[in-house]
Amino acid sequence: MPQQIVVVKLGGAAAQSVEEFAEDAAAQIRAGRRLVLVHGGSDDTNRLSEQLGHPPRFITSPSGHTSRRTDARTLEIMQMACRGALNQRVVAALQRRGVNAVGVSGVDGRVWEGERKAAVRSVEDGRIVMVRDDYTGTVSRVNVSLLRTLMEAGFTPVLCPPAISTNNEPINVDADRAAAVTAAALGASDLLLLTSAPGLLRQFPDESSLIRRIPRGQAESAQEFAQGRMKKKVMGATEALVGGVKRVVIGDARRARPIEAALAGEGTVLE
Amino acid sequence: MPQQIVVVKLGGAAAQSVEEFAEDAAAQIRAGRRLVLVHGGSDDTNRLSEQLGHPPRFITSPSGHTSRRTDARTLEIMQMACRGALNQRVVAALQRRGVNAVGVSGVDGRVWEGERKAAVRSVEDGRIVMVRDDYTGTVSRVNVSLLRTLMEAGFTPVLCPPAISTNNEPINVDADRAAAVTAAALGASDLLLLTSAPGLLRQFPDESSLIRRIPRGQAESAQEFAQGRMKKKVMGATEALVGGVKRVVIGDARRARPIEAALAGEGTVLE
Repeated sequence: MPQQIVVVKLGGAAAQSVEEFAEDAAAQIRAGRRLVLVHGGSDDTNRLSEQLGHPPRFITSPSGHTSRRTDARTLEIMQMACRGALNQRVVAALQRRGVNAVGVSGVDGRVWEGERKAAVRSVEDGRIVMVRDDYTGTVSRVNVSLLRTLMEAGFTPVLCPPAISTNNEPINVDADRAAAVTAAALGASDLLLLTSAPGLLRQFPDESSLIRRIPRGQAESAQEFAQGRMKKKVMGATEALVGGVKRVVIGDARRARPIEAALAGEGTVLE
Repeated sequence: MPQQIVVVKLGGAAAQSVEEFAEDAAAQIRAGRRLVLVHGGSDDTNRLSEQLGHPPRFITSPSGHTSRRTDARTLEIMQMACRGALNQRVVAALQRRGVNAVGVSGVDGRVWEGERKAAVRSVEDGRIVMVRDDYTGTVSRVNVSLLRTLMEAGFTPVLCPPAISTNNEPINVDADRAAAVTAAALGASDLLLLTSAPGLLRQFPDESSLIRRIPRGQAESAQEFAQGRMKKKVMGATEALVGGVKRVVIGDARRARPIEAALAGEGTVLE
Protein backbone atom coordinates (compact mmCIF):
# COMPACT_ATOMS: atom_id res chain seq x y z
CA MET A 1 0.00 0.00 0.00
CA PRO A 2 1.44 3.42 -0.87
CA GLN A 3 2.22 5.70 2.05
CA GLN A 4 -0.63 7.94 3.07
CA ILE A 5 -0.34 11.63 2.34
CA VAL A 6 -0.83 14.31 4.98
CA VAL A 7 -1.42 17.90 3.83
CA VAL A 8 -0.39 20.45 6.46
CA LYS A 9 -1.40 24.09 6.26
CA LEU A 10 0.91 26.28 8.36
CA GLY A 11 -0.67 29.34 9.82
CA GLY A 12 -0.56 31.74 12.70
CA ALA A 13 2.31 31.00 15.03
CA ALA A 14 3.70 28.21 12.82
CA ALA A 15 4.37 30.69 10.05
CA GLN A 16 6.23 32.83 12.58
CA SER A 17 8.36 30.04 14.04
CA VAL A 18 9.51 28.39 10.87
CA GLU A 19 12.40 26.54 12.49
CA GLU A 20 10.23 24.74 15.07
CA PHE A 21 7.67 23.90 12.43
CA ALA A 22 10.37 22.48 10.15
CA GLU A 23 11.71 20.38 13.03
CA ASP A 24 8.28 18.85 13.57
CA ALA A 25 7.71 18.28 9.85
CA ALA A 26 11.13 16.66 9.46
CA ALA A 27 10.40 14.27 12.34
CA GLN A 28 7.15 13.18 10.69
CA ILE A 29 8.89 12.63 7.37
CA ARG A 30 11.63 10.59 9.04
CA ALA A 31 8.88 8.52 10.66
CA GLY A 32 7.69 7.62 7.17
CA ARG A 33 4.86 10.05 6.51
CA ARG A 34 4.54 11.82 3.19
CA LEU A 35 3.85 15.50 3.80
CA VAL A 36 2.70 18.26 1.50
CA LEU A 37 3.11 21.64 3.19
CA VAL A 38 1.02 24.70 2.35
CA HIS A 39 1.34 28.26 3.64
CA GLY A 40 -0.12 31.66 2.96
CA GLY A 41 1.60 34.85 3.99
CA SER A 42 -0.93 37.49 4.99
CA ASP A 43 1.16 38.95 7.79
CA ASP A 44 4.30 39.09 5.65
CA THR A 45 2.36 40.66 2.79
CA ASN A 46 0.92 43.30 5.13
CA ARG A 47 4.36 44.15 6.47
CA LEU A 48 5.99 44.39 3.03
CA SER A 49 3.05 46.44 1.73
CA GLU A 50 3.57 48.95 4.53
CA GLN A 51 7.33 49.07 3.90
CA LEU A 52 6.74 49.73 0.20
CA GLY A 53 4.25 52.52 0.81
CA HIS A 54 1.32 50.55 -0.60
CA PRO A 55 -0.55 49.81 2.63
CA PRO A 56 -2.90 46.83 2.71
CA ARG A 57 -6.56 47.45 1.99
CA PHE A 58 -9.47 45.13 2.49
CA ILE A 59 -12.81 44.61 0.84
CA THR A 60 -15.97 43.90 2.80
CA SER A 61 -18.55 42.00 0.78
CA PRO A 62 -22.27 42.74 1.14
CA SER A 63 -22.55 39.52 3.20
CA GLY A 64 -19.88 40.78 5.59
CA HIS A 65 -16.87 38.72 4.44
CA THR A 66 -13.53 40.50 4.44
CA SER A 67 -10.85 39.85 1.82
CA ARG A 68 -7.66 41.48 0.66
CA ARG A 69 -7.92 44.16 -2.00
CA THR A 70 -5.48 42.73 -4.56
CA ASP A 71 -4.57 45.17 -7.29
CA ALA A 72 -1.65 44.35 -9.60
CA ARG A 73 0.90 45.94 -7.28
CA THR A 74 -0.47 44.11 -4.23
CA LEU A 75 -0.31 40.84 -6.15
CA GLU A 76 3.36 41.45 -6.91
CA ILE A 77 4.05 42.35 -3.27
CA MET A 78 2.24 39.19 -2.18
CA GLN A 79 4.39 37.09 -4.53
CA MET A 80 7.55 38.68 -3.16
CA ALA A 81 6.52 38.11 0.46
CA CYS A 82 5.10 34.60 0.00
CA ARG A 83 7.04 32.90 -2.74
CA GLY A 84 10.17 35.03 -2.51
CA ALA A 85 10.73 35.24 1.24
CA LEU A 86 8.53 33.04 3.47
CA ASN A 87 8.49 30.04 1.12
CA GLN A 88 12.28 30.07 0.84
CA ARG A 89 12.61 30.33 4.63
CA VAL A 90 10.51 27.18 4.99
CA VAL A 91 12.38 25.35 2.22
CA ALA A 92 15.80 26.26 3.67
CA ALA A 93 14.70 25.28 7.20
CA LEU A 94 13.65 21.88 5.90
CA GLN A 95 16.87 21.48 3.89
CA ARG A 96 18.81 22.14 7.10
CA ARG A 97 17.08 19.06 8.55
CA GLY A 98 17.80 16.79 5.61
CA VAL A 99 14.38 17.14 3.96
CA ASN A 100 14.73 17.71 0.22
CA ALA A 101 12.07 20.39 -0.04
CA VAL A 102 10.96 22.21 -3.20
CA GLY A 103 8.99 25.45 -3.12
CA VAL A 104 6.07 25.63 -5.53
CA SER A 105 3.49 28.36 -6.09
CA GLY A 106 0.15 27.64 -7.69
CA VAL A 107 1.51 29.21 -10.89
CA ASP A 108 4.36 26.69 -11.18
CA GLY A 109 3.13 23.74 -13.18
CA ARG A 110 -0.36 25.33 -12.97
CA VAL A 111 -0.82 23.42 -9.71
CA TRP A 112 -3.66 25.67 -8.58
CA GLU A 113 -5.96 26.79 -11.37
CA GLY A 114 -9.06 28.93 -10.90
CA GLU A 115 -11.34 31.58 -12.33
CA ARG A 116 -10.40 35.18 -11.71
CA LYS A 117 -13.39 37.09 -10.37
CA ALA A 118 -14.50 39.50 -13.08
CA ALA A 119 -15.80 41.94 -10.49
CA VAL A 120 -15.86 41.97 -6.72
CA ARG A 121 -18.69 43.63 -4.84
CA SER A 122 -17.45 45.85 -2.06
CA VAL A 123 -19.30 47.85 0.56
CA GLU A 124 -17.80 51.34 0.83
CA ASP A 125 -19.46 54.04 2.95
CA GLY A 126 -22.66 52.01 2.95
CA ARG A 127 -22.81 51.77 -0.85
CA ILE A 128 -22.04 48.69 -2.96
CA VAL A 129 -19.32 49.39 -5.53
CA MET A 130 -17.85 47.05 -8.14
CA VAL A 131 -14.08 46.51 -8.00
CA ARG A 132 -12.82 45.36 -11.39
CA ASP A 133 -9.03 45.40 -11.14
CA ASP A 134 -8.82 42.79 -8.40
CA TYR A 135 -6.67 39.71 -8.96
CA THR A 136 -8.50 37.18 -6.82
CA GLY A 137 -10.27 33.92 -7.28
CA THR A 138 -10.80 30.42 -5.94
CA VAL A 139 -8.94 27.25 -6.86
CA SER A 140 -11.32 25.16 -8.95
CA ARG A 141 -8.83 22.63 -10.26
CA VAL A 142 -5.67 21.12 -8.78
CA ASN A 143 -3.22 19.86 -11.40
CA VAL A 144 -1.56 17.17 -9.33
CA SER A 145 1.00 16.19 -11.98
CA LEU A 146 3.81 18.40 -10.63
CA LEU A 147 3.12 17.41 -7.01
CA ARG A 148 3.02 13.69 -7.81
CA THR A 149 6.17 13.96 -9.92
CA LEU A 150 8.02 15.65 -7.06
CA MET A 151 6.75 13.26 -4.38
CA GLU A 152 7.52 10.13 -6.38
CA ALA A 153 11.08 11.40 -6.79
CA GLY A 154 11.40 11.91 -3.02
CA PHE A 155 10.93 15.69 -2.82
CA THR A 156 8.68 17.41 -0.28
CA PRO A 157 6.56 20.14 -1.90
CA VAL A 158 6.01 23.43 -0.06
CA LEU A 159 3.06 25.19 -1.71
CA CYS A 160 1.93 28.81 -1.51
CA PRO A 161 -0.28 31.29 -3.40
CA PRO A 162 -0.80 32.75 -5.93
CA ALA A 163 -2.81 30.45 -8.16
CA ILE A 164 -3.08 30.89 -11.92
CA SER A 165 -6.30 31.89 -13.63
CA THR A 166 -7.75 30.04 -16.59
CA ASN A 167 -6.64 33.18 -18.44
CA ASN A 168 -3.06 32.70 -17.19
CA GLU A 169 -2.90 35.58 -14.75
CA PRO A 170 -1.62 35.03 -11.21
CA ILE A 171 -4.51 35.38 -8.74
CA ASN A 172 -4.65 35.61 -4.98
CA VAL A 173 -6.46 32.68 -3.37
CA ASP A 174 -7.20 31.64 0.19
CA ALA A 175 -4.48 29.22 1.27
CA ASP A 176 -6.71 27.27 3.70
CA ARG A 177 -9.21 26.44 1.01
CA ALA A 178 -6.44 25.78 -1.52
CA ALA A 179 -4.87 23.33 0.94
CA ALA A 180 -8.25 21.63 1.30
CA VAL A 181 -8.80 21.03 -2.42
CA THR A 182 -5.17 19.93 -2.74
CA ALA A 183 -5.70 17.31 -0.03
CA ALA A 184 -8.80 16.07 -1.82
CA ALA A 185 -7.08 15.96 -5.22
CA LEU A 186 -4.09 14.03 -3.83
CA GLY A 187 -6.34 11.57 -2.01
CA ALA A 188 -4.72 12.58 1.29
CA SER A 189 -5.72 10.73 4.45
CA ASP A 190 -5.43 13.84 6.64
CA LEU A 191 -5.60 17.59 6.31
CA LEU A 192 -4.17 19.57 9.22
CA LEU A 193 -5.13 23.26 9.40
CA LEU A 194 -2.85 24.87 11.98
CA THR A 195 -3.88 28.18 13.50
CA SER A 196 -3.41 30.44 16.55
CA ALA A 197 -6.20 28.78 18.53
CA PRO A 198 -6.79 25.33 20.01
CA GLY A 199 -9.31 24.62 17.24
CA LEU A 200 -12.90 25.69 16.58
CA LEU A 201 -14.40 27.31 19.70
CA ARG A 202 -18.08 27.14 20.59
CA GLN A 203 -17.81 30.54 22.33
CA PHE A 204 -15.01 32.49 20.69
CA PRO A 205 -12.57 33.52 22.21
CA ASP A 206 -13.10 31.20 25.21
CA GLU A 207 -10.49 28.52 24.63
CA SER A 208 -12.15 26.15 27.11
CA SER A 209 -15.09 25.95 24.70
CA LEU A 210 -13.08 23.90 22.17
CA ILE A 211 -15.24 21.66 20.02
CA ARG A 212 -13.32 18.37 20.01
CA ARG A 213 -15.15 16.44 17.35
CA ILE A 214 -17.52 17.23 14.52
CA PRO A 215 -19.04 14.31 12.62
CA ARG A 216 -18.70 14.78 8.87
CA GLY A 217 -22.44 15.28 8.39
CA GLN A 218 -22.38 18.32 10.67
CA ALA A 219 -19.28 20.04 9.28
CA GLU A 220 -21.19 22.62 7.31
CA SER A 221 -23.43 23.64 10.20
CA ALA A 222 -20.37 24.06 12.45
CA GLN A 223 -19.79 27.19 10.38
CA GLU A 224 -22.08 29.08 12.80
CA PHE A 225 -19.33 28.97 15.48
CA ALA A 226 -16.56 30.27 13.20
CA GLN A 227 -15.30 33.84 13.44
CA GLY A 228 -13.16 35.76 10.95
CA ARG A 229 -10.59 33.64 9.15
CA MET A 230 -11.82 30.51 10.95
CA LYS A 231 -14.75 30.58 8.53
CA LYS A 232 -12.43 29.72 5.64
CA LYS A 233 -10.95 26.85 7.64
CA VAL A 234 -14.33 25.31 8.35
CA MET A 235 -15.31 25.84 4.72
CA GLY A 236 -12.04 24.20 3.62
CA ALA A 237 -12.55 21.33 6.06
CA THR A 238 -16.01 20.69 4.63
CA GLU A 239 -14.68 20.77 1.06
CA ALA A 240 -11.87 18.35 1.97
CA LEU A 241 -14.27 15.85 3.58
CA VAL A 242 -16.63 16.05 0.62
CA GLY A 243 -13.61 15.49 -1.61
CA GLY A 244 -12.73 12.23 0.16
CA VAL A 245 -10.19 13.27 2.80
CA LYS A 246 -10.67 10.95 5.79
CA ARG A 247 -9.96 13.39 8.57
CA VAL A 248 -9.44 17.12 8.99
CA VAL A 249 -7.90 18.50 12.17
CA ILE A 250 -7.96 22.21 13.01
CA GLY A 251 -5.00 22.29 15.39
CA ASP A 252 -3.03 24.69 17.53
CA ALA A 253 0.00 26.17 15.79
CA ARG A 254 1.25 27.78 19.01
CA ARG A 255 2.16 24.59 20.84
CA ALA A 256 5.32 22.53 20.52
CA ARG A 257 5.20 19.93 17.73
CA PRO A 258 1.91 21.15 16.27
CA ILE A 259 1.86 18.52 13.48
CA GLU A 260 2.43 15.63 15.88
CA ALA A 261 -0.30 16.94 18.20
CA ALA A 262 -2.83 17.43 15.40
CA LEU A 263 -2.13 13.94 14.06
CA ALA A 264 -2.77 12.64 17.59
CA GLY A 265 -6.21 14.23 17.39
CA GLU A 266 -5.55 17.35 19.48
CA GLY A 267 -7.77 20.17 18.26
CA THR A 268 -11.07 20.03 16.42
CA VAL A 269 -11.34 16.75 14.55
CA LEU A 270 -13.75 16.60 11.64
CA GLU A 271 -14.26 13.08 10.31
CA MET B 1 18.66 9.69 -29.19
CA PRO B 2 17.32 11.89 -26.41
CA GLN B 3 16.62 15.50 -27.33
CA GLN B 4 19.52 17.84 -26.80
CA ILE B 5 19.30 20.32 -23.98
CA VAL B 6 19.87 24.05 -24.45
CA VAL B 7 20.52 26.19 -21.37
CA VAL B 8 19.56 29.84 -21.90
CA LYS B 9 20.63 32.58 -19.53
CA LEU B 10 18.38 35.65 -19.85
CA GLY B 11 20.02 38.93 -19.18
CA GLY B 12 20.00 42.58 -19.99
CA ALA B 13 17.12 43.47 -22.27
CA ALA B 14 15.68 39.94 -22.21
CA ALA B 15 15.03 40.23 -18.51
CA GLN B 16 13.22 43.51 -19.19
CA SER B 17 11.05 42.22 -22.03
CA VAL B 18 9.84 39.00 -20.50
CA GLU B 19 6.94 38.57 -22.90
CA GLU B 20 9.07 38.68 -26.04
CA PHE B 21 11.60 36.35 -24.48
CA ALA B 22 8.85 33.89 -23.51
CA GLU B 23 7.50 34.00 -27.06
CA ASP B 24 10.91 33.06 -28.45
CA ALA B 25 11.43 30.31 -25.85
CA ALA B 26 7.97 28.86 -26.50
CA ALA B 27 8.68 28.71 -30.24
CA GLN B 28 11.91 26.77 -29.62
CA ILE B 29 10.13 24.34 -27.29
CA ARG B 30 7.35 23.80 -29.84
CA ALA B 31 10.07 23.08 -32.41
CA GLY B 32 11.23 20.20 -30.19
CA ARG B 33 14.11 21.70 -28.23
CA ARG B 34 14.42 21.08 -24.50
CA LEU B 35 15.20 24.37 -22.77
CA VAL B 36 16.39 25.13 -19.27
CA LEU B 37 16.05 28.85 -18.55
CA VAL B 38 18.19 30.73 -16.05
CA HIS B 39 17.94 34.34 -14.90
CA GLY B 40 19.46 36.61 -12.29
CA GLY B 41 17.81 39.82 -11.20
CA SER B 42 20.40 42.46 -10.38
CA ASP B 43 18.37 45.36 -11.70
CA ASP B 44 15.21 44.23 -9.90
CA THR B 45 17.17 43.71 -6.68
CA ASN B 46 18.67 47.19 -6.95
CA ARG B 47 15.26 48.74 -7.49
CA LEU B 48 13.60 46.89 -4.60
CA SER B 49 16.57 47.67 -2.33
CA GLU B 50 16.12 51.37 -3.02
CA GLN B 51 12.37 51.15 -2.43
CA LEU B 52 12.93 49.43 0.91
CA GLY B 53 15.49 51.97 2.09
CA HIS B 54 18.37 49.48 2.01
CA PRO B 55 20.25 50.81 -1.02
CA PRO B 56 22.55 48.45 -2.91
CA ARG B 57 26.21 48.45 -1.96
CA PHE B 58 29.08 46.86 -3.79
CA ILE B 59 32.40 45.36 -2.82
CA THR B 60 35.56 45.91 -4.84
CA SER B 61 38.08 43.12 -4.40
CA PRO B 62 41.83 43.84 -4.26
CA SER B 63 42.07 42.51 -7.85
CA GLY B 64 39.43 45.04 -8.99
CA HIS B 65 36.36 42.77 -9.30
CA THR B 66 33.06 44.26 -8.18
CA SER B 67 30.35 42.21 -6.49
CA ARG B 68 27.17 42.85 -4.56
CA ARG B 69 27.49 43.38 -0.82
CA THR B 70 24.99 40.73 0.35
CA ASP B 71 24.11 41.03 4.03
CA ALA B 72 21.16 39.02 5.38
CA ARG B 73 18.65 41.76 4.52
CA THR B 74 20.00 42.12 0.97
CA LEU B 75 19.77 38.36 0.52
CA GLU B 76 16.10 38.46 1.50
CA ILE B 77 15.46 41.39 -0.84
CA MET B 78 17.21 39.50 -3.62
CA GLN B 79 15.00 36.46 -3.02
CA MET B 80 11.88 38.62 -3.12
CA ALA B 81 12.94 40.34 -6.35
CA CYS B 82 14.29 37.25 -8.13
CA ARG B 83 12.27 34.27 -6.99
CA GLY B 84 9.20 36.17 -5.84
CA ALA B 85 8.68 38.62 -8.69
CA LEU B 86 10.85 38.18 -11.82
CA ASN B 87 10.81 34.38 -11.76
CA GLN B 88 7.02 34.31 -11.52
CA ARG B 89 6.73 36.82 -14.36
CA VAL B 90 8.78 34.49 -16.57
CA VAL B 91 6.84 31.39 -15.47
CA ALA B 92 3.45 33.06 -16.05
CA ALA B 93 4.56 34.41 -19.46
CA LEU B 94 5.53 30.88 -20.49
CA GLN B 95 2.29 29.42 -19.12
CA ARG B 96 0.39 31.93 -21.26
CA ARG B 97 2.06 30.34 -24.27
CA GLY B 98 1.29 26.76 -23.34
CA VAL B 99 4.70 25.96 -21.84
CA ASN B 100 4.32 24.16 -18.51
CA ALA B 101 7.06 26.08 -16.69
CA VAL B 102 8.16 25.59 -13.09
CA GLY B 103 10.20 28.17 -11.20
CA VAL B 104 13.11 26.80 -9.19
CA SER B 105 15.72 28.56 -7.10
CA GLY B 106 19.04 26.96 -6.29
CA VAL B 107 17.70 26.29 -2.78
CA ASP B 108 14.80 24.16 -4.06
CA GLY B 109 15.96 20.57 -4.28
CA ARG B 110 19.47 21.90 -3.48
CA VAL B 111 19.92 22.36 -7.24
CA TRP B 112 22.81 24.78 -6.79
CA GLU B 113 25.12 23.94 -3.92
CA GLY B 114 28.25 25.86 -3.01
CA GLU B 115 30.57 27.03 -0.27
CA ARG B 116 29.70 30.27 1.42
CA LYS B 117 32.74 32.55 1.50
CA ALA B 118 33.87 32.80 5.12
CA ALA B 119 35.24 36.28 4.53
CA VAL B 120 35.33 38.60 1.55
CA ARG B 121 38.24 41.01 1.05
CA SER B 122 37.06 44.49 0.20
CA VAL B 123 38.96 47.62 -0.67
CA GLU B 124 37.55 50.59 1.22
CA ASP B 125 39.27 53.97 1.19
CA GLY B 126 42.43 52.30 -0.07
CA ARG B 127 42.57 49.79 2.79
CA ILE B 128 41.69 46.08 2.62
CA VAL B 129 38.97 45.13 5.09
CA MET B 130 37.42 41.74 5.74
CA VAL B 131 33.64 41.46 5.33
CA ARG B 132 32.35 38.52 7.34
CA ASP B 133 28.55 38.78 7.19
CA ASP B 134 28.31 38.37 3.43
CA TYR B 135 26.08 35.62 2.02
CA THR B 136 27.87 34.90 -1.22
CA GLY B 137 29.60 31.98 -2.85
CA THR B 138 30.06 30.02 -6.04
CA VAL B 139 28.14 26.97 -7.22
CA SER B 140 30.46 24.00 -6.84
CA ARG B 141 27.93 21.23 -7.34
CA VAL B 142 24.75 20.98 -9.40
CA ASN B 143 22.25 18.45 -8.07
CA VAL B 144 20.55 17.60 -11.35
CA SER B 145 17.95 15.27 -9.83
CA LEU B 146 15.18 17.89 -9.55
CA LEU B 147 15.88 19.30 -13.02
CA ARG B 148 15.91 15.86 -14.65
CA THR B 149 12.74 14.86 -12.78
CA LEU B 150 10.95 17.97 -14.03
CA MET B 151 12.19 17.68 -17.61
CA GLU B 152 11.35 13.99 -17.91
CA ALA B 153 7.81 14.82 -16.81
CA GLY B 154 7.53 17.53 -19.49
CA PHE B 155 8.06 20.63 -17.35
CA THR B 156 10.37 23.50 -18.34
CA PRO B 157 12.53 24.65 -15.39
CA VAL B 158 13.16 28.37 -14.87
CA LEU B 159 16.13 28.71 -12.51
CA CYS B 160 17.33 31.67 -10.47
CA PRO B 161 19.58 32.46 -7.48
CA PRO B 162 20.11 32.07 -4.59
CA ALA B 163 22.06 28.84 -4.23
CA ILE B 164 22.30 26.90 -0.96
CA SER B 165 25.54 26.59 0.98
CA THR B 166 26.93 23.29 2.21
CA ASN B 167 25.87 24.69 5.59
CA ASN B 168 22.29 25.15 4.32
CA GLU B 169 22.21 28.93 4.14
CA PRO B 170 20.93 30.66 1.00
CA ILE B 171 23.84 32.37 -0.78
CA ASN B 172 24.02 34.84 -3.62
CA VAL B 173 25.78 33.46 -6.69
CA ASP B 174 26.53 34.77 -10.15
CA ALA B 175 23.77 33.56 -12.46
CA ASP B 176 25.97 33.44 -15.59
CA ARG B 177 28.45 31.09 -13.98
CA ALA B 178 25.64 29.10 -12.34
CA ALA B 179 24.05 28.68 -15.79
CA ALA B 180 27.40 27.48 -17.12
CA VAL B 181 27.90 24.73 -14.53
CA THR B 182 24.25 23.74 -14.93
CA ALA B 183 24.76 23.30 -18.68
CA ALA B 184 27.81 21.16 -18.02
CA ALA B 185 26.06 19.03 -15.37
CA LEU B 186 23.06 18.41 -17.64
CA GLY B 187 25.27 17.51 -20.60
CA ALA B 188 23.71 20.35 -22.58
CA SER B 189 24.67 20.79 -26.23
CA ASP B 190 24.47 24.58 -26.08
CA LEU B 191 24.71 27.36 -23.55
CA LEU B 192 23.33 30.73 -24.64
CA LEU B 193 24.36 33.74 -22.56
CA LEU B 194 22.14 36.66 -23.61
CA THR B 195 23.25 40.18 -22.82
CA SER B 196 22.84 43.82 -23.86
CA ALA B 197 25.61 43.65 -26.46
CA PRO B 198 26.14 41.81 -29.75
CA GLY B 199 28.65 39.52 -28.00
CA LEU B 200 32.24 39.90 -26.85
CA LEU B 201 33.80 43.04 -28.34
CA ARG B 202 37.48 43.39 -29.19
CA GLN B 203 37.29 47.14 -28.51
CA PHE B 204 34.52 47.75 -26.01
CA PRO B 205 32.10 49.53 -26.57
CA ASP B 206 32.61 49.51 -30.36
CA GLU B 207 29.93 47.06 -31.51
CA SER B 208 31.57 46.66 -34.91
CA SER B 209 34.51 44.98 -33.16
CA LEU B 210 32.43 41.85 -32.37
CA ILE B 211 34.54 38.72 -32.03
CA ARG B 212 32.54 36.16 -34.01
CA ARG B 213 34.32 32.96 -33.08
CA ILE B 214 36.67 31.83 -30.36
CA PRO B 215 38.13 28.31 -30.61
CA ARG B 216 37.79 26.41 -27.35
CA GLY B 217 41.53 26.44 -26.70
CA GLN B 218 41.53 30.25 -26.67
CA ALA B 219 38.45 30.84 -24.50
CA GLU B 220 40.40 31.66 -21.38
CA SER B 221 42.69 34.17 -23.06
CA ALA B 222 39.65 35.94 -24.58
CA GLN B 223 39.10 37.19 -21.03
CA GLU B 224 41.43 40.11 -21.81
CA PHE B 225 38.72 41.70 -24.00
CA ALA B 226 35.96 41.40 -21.38
CA GLN B 227 34.79 44.42 -19.41
CA GLY B 228 32.66 44.45 -16.25
CA ARG B 229 30.04 41.73 -16.09
CA MET B 230 31.20 40.33 -19.42
CA LYS B 231 34.13 38.86 -17.47
CA LYS B 232 31.76 36.47 -15.69
CA LYS B 233 30.24 35.43 -19.00
CA VAL B 234 33.60 34.57 -20.53
CA MET B 235 34.55 32.77 -17.32
CA GLY B 236 31.26 30.85 -17.44
CA ALA B 237 31.72 30.05 -21.13
CA THR B 238 35.15 28.61 -20.40
CA GLU B 239 33.80 26.52 -17.52
CA ALA B 240 30.96 25.21 -19.67
CA LEU B 241 33.32 24.16 -22.48
CA VAL B 242 35.67 22.46 -20.03
CA GLY B 243 32.59 20.71 -18.59
CA GLY B 244 31.68 19.24 -21.96
CA VAL B 245 29.18 21.71 -23.42
CA LYS B 246 29.65 21.66 -27.19
CA ARG B 247 28.99 25.31 -27.92
CA VAL B 248 28.55 28.55 -25.99
CA VAL B 249 27.07 31.61 -27.67
CA ILE B 250 27.20 35.05 -26.09
CA GLY B 251 24.27 36.62 -27.90
CA ASP B 252 22.36 39.87 -28.13
CA ALA B 253 19.34 40.05 -25.81
CA ARG B 254 18.14 43.31 -27.39
CA ARG B 255 17.18 41.89 -30.78
CA ALA B 256 13.97 40.14 -31.77
CA ARG B 257 14.03 36.37 -31.14
CA PRO B 258 17.33 36.37 -29.24
CA ILE B 259 17.32 32.61 -28.63
CA GLU B 260 16.71 31.78 -32.29
CA ALA B 261 19.48 34.18 -33.35
CA ALA B 262 22.01 32.82 -30.85
CA LEU B 263 21.23 29.24 -31.89
CA ALA B 264 21.87 30.34 -35.49
CA GLY B 265 25.34 31.42 -34.40
CA GLU B 266 24.75 35.18 -34.16
CA GLY B 267 27.01 36.63 -31.48
CA THR B 268 30.30 35.33 -30.14
CA VAL B 269 30.49 31.58 -30.63
CA LEU B 270 32.87 29.65 -28.43
CA GLU B 271 33.32 26.03 -29.53
